[in-house]
Amino acid sequence: MKVDVCFSPLLFDSYATKNAIALVVDIFRATTSICTALHNGATAIKTTASLTEAMHEKELGVLVAAERNTLKCNFADFGNSPFDFTSDRVNGKEIVFTTTNGTSAIEAAKNAEQIIIGAFSNITTVADYCCKKNKNIIIVCSGWNNRFCLEDTLFAGALIEKLFETEQHIELPDAAKASFALWKVAKANLLAYICGAEHYQRLKKNGLENDVSYCLTSDTTSVLPRLDRNSGTITL
Amino acid sequence: MKVDVCFSPLLFDSYATKNAIALVVDIFRATTSICTALHNGATAIKTTASLTEAMHEKELGVLVAAERNTLKCNFADFGNSPFDFTSDRVNGKEIVFTTTNGTSAIEAAKNAEQIIIGAFSNITTVADYCCKKNKNIIIVCSGWNNRFCLEDTLFAGALIEKLFETEQHIELPDAAKASFALWKVAKANLLAYICGAEHYQRLKKNGLENDVSYCLTSDTTSVLPRLDRNSGTITL
Repeated sequence: MKVDVCFSPLLFDSYATKNAIALVVDIFRATTSICTALHNGATAIKTTASLTEAMHEKELGVLVAAERNTLKCNFADFGNSPFDFTSDRVNGKEIVFTTTNGTSAIEAAKNAEQIIIGAFSNITTVADYCCKKNKNIIIVCSGWNNRFCLEDTLFAGALIEKLFETEQHIELPDAAKASFALWKVAKANLLAYICGAEHYQRLKKNGLENDVSYCLTSDTTSVLPRLDRNSGTITL
Repeated sequence: MKVDVCFSPLLFDSYATKNAIALVVDIFRATTSICTALHNGATAIKTTASLTEAMHEKELGVLVAAERNTLKCNFADFGNSPFDFTSDRVNGKEIVFTTTNGTSAIEAAKNAEQIIIGAFSNITTVADYCCKKNKNIIIVCSGWNNRFCLEDTLFAGALIEKLFETEQHIELPDAAKASFALWKVAKANLLAYICGAEHYQRLKKNGLENDVSYCLTSDTTSVLPRLDRNSGTITL
């Protein structure tokens, strides 16, 4: 089993290999929110990188989550906070979802054989699934505007640590080695470490620190969101 | 002063900011070799990403260094080993230079206001220059086929440590923080750490381990190679 880490959606084609599972990650906050919404009963998440498309869906009466630069778009029902997606609001509903970074990472990975969605929220479920499948994995970090970000990288390192609990032989290319090493530095006090991250500062500036600790909490759910490439829809 | 690290030539446009100095790095081995060649008296290094152009220059009688996938190209005078560029071979000469990764990183950074070339070989000179200029710096890692690589990242971390010896206030975005953290993990035994890197394995497979320890040695020279954007030529 080889586990690689792609630090930016722009780099996906340089990491793509045949038959690998692409695991898309946007810890702050898209993939955390997607896990939460599906856990709370949303039937499907349709992702789009296009605000215009999201507005159009809203006009058609569909629930829409839309965020740009950490803030909820005015026209939308939800922003990108996992706390938005409570069961009373999402149970039994389909949601159209567009965010600054997470949805473009999904878009970048769309030619992968299989695309799953990961976050600290479902890390053990993701690890168990990957070990069972025993295929190569590419962890696709959403980053920020195509730039490297710490929180997605630390998740990659945490997942690698978890995979090693089951698998003894995992090939780690350079980016995966770096992610694992950073996780070992940060894990003793993850929240304190992440306070130095660029995106933490952006969230704090907008009063969204509470989202951060939730997004860094492991195993709040056991959902395994999967993307259907044809429909562009994420379901369980 | 802000020091950022761009992990792949493909990402340069996401890191570029006005007035920043781009510091191009390809530890294994292009920028190490460029430092060595200029230290040993080469008058200029003309870089090109094109093998065809390099072959044409060779026909015109110019000395050519050409490497693809760690190996010297048959038609060329030099490969990409720093040991190739001895003063008896390069003193007073211009060299055309094309390598798998380093020359495309230079190409990617070509719109930066200023482009300088760094390696462990000239790390103190680079640090002194950057502190004197007191501008923002983007360390452009060449990586491998647009992928992240450990050795360029560790150099970035080492340079940041060195800059902190002079500057107390340096802003470090996420990629720079990660590079500095990795350097602190690896520096106690850099050579042992790098043995796990992908490119070390490639070099070893081709009997080029000796290059590795040279490429990881600090301050073998005090040259500061600079790229003239108009001519595409690196000189002192």
